[in-house]
Amino acid sequence: MDIPDVLALRDGYIEALDQTVLPHQVRTLRIETVGQLIDAITSLAIRGAPLLGAAGALGVALAVRQGQREGWDRQRLTAEIGRLAAARPTAVNLAREVHAAAAFLDTAAPDTAAPDTAAADSAALDRDMLDRAEETARAALETADEVSLRISKRGAAYLREACRTGTQLRIHTHCNTGSLACLGWGTALGVIRALHTEGALANVIVDETRPLLQGARLTCWELDQLGIEHRLACDGAGPFLISRGLADAVVVGADRIAANWDVANKIGTYSLALAAHRAGIPFLVAAPESTIDENTPDGDAIPIEQRPDAEVSEPAAPIGTSALNYAFDITPAELVTAIVTEERVIQVAGKG
Amino acid sequence: MDIPDVLALRDGYIEALDQTVLPHQVRTLRIETVGQLIDAITSLAIRGAPLLGAAGALGVALAVRQGQREGWDRQRLTAEIGRLAAARPTAVNLAREVHAAAAFLDTAAPDTAAPDTAAADSAALDRDMLDRAEETARAALETADEVSLRISKRGAAYLREACRTGTQLRIHTHCNTGSLACLGWGTALGVIRALHTEGALANVIVDETRPLLQGARLTCWELDQLGIEHRLACDGAGPFLISRGLADAVVVGADRIAANWDVANKIGTYSLALAAHRAGIPFLVAAPESTIDENTPDGDAIPIEQRPDAEVSEPAAPIGTSALNYAFDITPAELVTAIVTEERVIQVAGKG
Repeated sequence: MDIPDVLALRDGYIEALDQTVLPHQVRTLRIETVGQLIDAITSLAIRGAPLLGAAGALGVALAVRQGQREGWDRQRLTAEIGRLAAARPTAVNLAREVHAAAAFLDTAAPDTAAPDTAAADSAALDRDMLDRAEETARAALETADEVSLRISKRGAAYLREACRTGTQLRIHTHCNTGSLACLGWGTALGVIRALHTEGALANVIVDETRPLLQGARLTCWELDQLGIEHRLACDGAGPFLISRGLADAVVVGADRIAANWDVANKIGTYSLALAAHRAGIPFLVAAPESTIDENTPDGDAIPIEQRPDAEVSEPAAPIGTSALNYAFDITPAELVTAIVTEERVIQVAGKG
Repeated sequence: MDIPDVLALRDGYIEALDQTVLPHQVRTLRIETVGQLIDAITSLAIRGAPLLGAAGALGVALAVRQGQREGWDRQRLTAEIGRLAAARPTAVNLAREVHAAAAFLDTAAPDTAAPDTAAADSAALDRDMLDRAEETARAALETADEVSLRISKRGAAYLREACRTGTQLRIHTHCNTGSLACLGWGTALGVIRALHTEGALANVIVDETRPLLQGARLTCWELDQLGIEHRLACDGAGPFLISRGLADAVVVGADRIAANWDVANKIGTYSLALAAHRAGIPFLVAAPESTIDENTPDGDAIPIEQRPDAEVSEPAAPIGTSALNYAFDITPAELVTAIVTEERVIQVAGKG
């Protein structure tokens, strides 16, 4: 079995797998407006840093089409695109790909030409804009596919070299970083899939990844589809399982990597890095080059999204209980063994 | 407000707060048989190492009464008491207090006296046994109360000395270690309550404590009752919050402490110890002397209870997902700053 289409640009709308109802339902969303896309992103129907990047490129095409349909001026179009770029703050990929896909807004003729020619210009511009935006969106989907495949294979080769256990590898991972998060094979889960394809994988331990359980819901579902042996664990158990020697390596994705190689990733990642460091096993981060943000000097400069208290407190805690619901954490570079991208392996440990 | 009666010996039965339905319901269980008590312990209606100890003493009295009612011989009584002692393997308190309360079985006259006198002896013995068992049970409840109060005050004094922040303390804790777990004030939560009573507490961060959410359900409820400011966090977030400087100390309970000071406690504890160690803040274990097991040389020798997969995998993961559901983890002594009991403060760090 394989994973169904996660994200696609159809004729005038975006079709996306609704990741909030997996694994018990497989349902697609039809997204026709920028507002609907932002809702899908904030509700995590569409999530995962690389997928958010591709969704951003598709969103620009959607915005141009919606703008034509509803007669937006350039200012409104720019505002809507800006709103999309800001839908989630931690992953750099979303804002980056939105801005890249919307670059034509800076180079295209402004709205302020003489009235007569402006109308003609505007019609021509709109056709041209839509073509360009949709072409950019389709290219983003293809690129995401290719990039994840290259990360997967490079990461698998790295681990086979780094672990040298002489047996198949047991991998601990967190959250969801497969096709659902990235298209193609994924990042960390792509590395696991590549090891499996090469006959070099024994099994996988998956953190459930509270509060929204992307590990339990999405990663277990993907591993089921791929026929890969796995067991689920509570997030609090991960470090102990590592201390007991149940994993040969930890592999995770990233939402943003700072210039000094500090890594922002789903909350819970830092605790695995602490445990891997103490156990002396590799802690590998698998992510596209686009996740590396040279403009962010270190982890302290990465904005950490705080999500609603109710995601943590409901339904178990007493009504009205306050929560600290940071969606991401920062793993300092000195706890990262290596970062693998589609271009290179960055040996990080010891440089922190 | 205060906490209602958690565990009591009534006339011929045990009354216990059903901790599986808190915080949304406050319901008591009427427990009349050893089987019902074992069910209440395995379902975690009665839980927490010190409370399990007291419940064990009450259970011996219950067994004697049930034996009289149902005409058990000595062998059957011993078997039922043995079954009770083994209901949960990690906490040493349960087995220890069951065996202490049942010590009269070894000293009392055996069943094998001559037939005629045996009947008369047995009736006398039974009355005597029941009186002794109930007296032992009531003493166990009183002792648990006193012990937890002494631990609480000693722990608070230790932290005020160790932290010396000059301001009120912010404490990170895990699972539930209050009145519900221990009677009296509790162990780790008792230390927090003592700090609060002394005006030395700023606020508390509570891990939700998956899979059964004792932190979210029970600790938040107790802190609500006591009017202590607190916020809830996912277990995976704890280490990151510590790295961000949101706590001045971590305080947890223990289910068993080995002779070398390795500590078994609720799964997720080890990750907090790793984070506290790296952040340079105290990691304090608060537990009664009865939790220290000189017969267990180190953490590797502590049996770790594995509970059903479904506690972790349901309802989020695909049906049939396997889980690794260790209920406890081991924190090595070198990550423990100190252990506080009703008798002493054991300075552990640096001795590992």
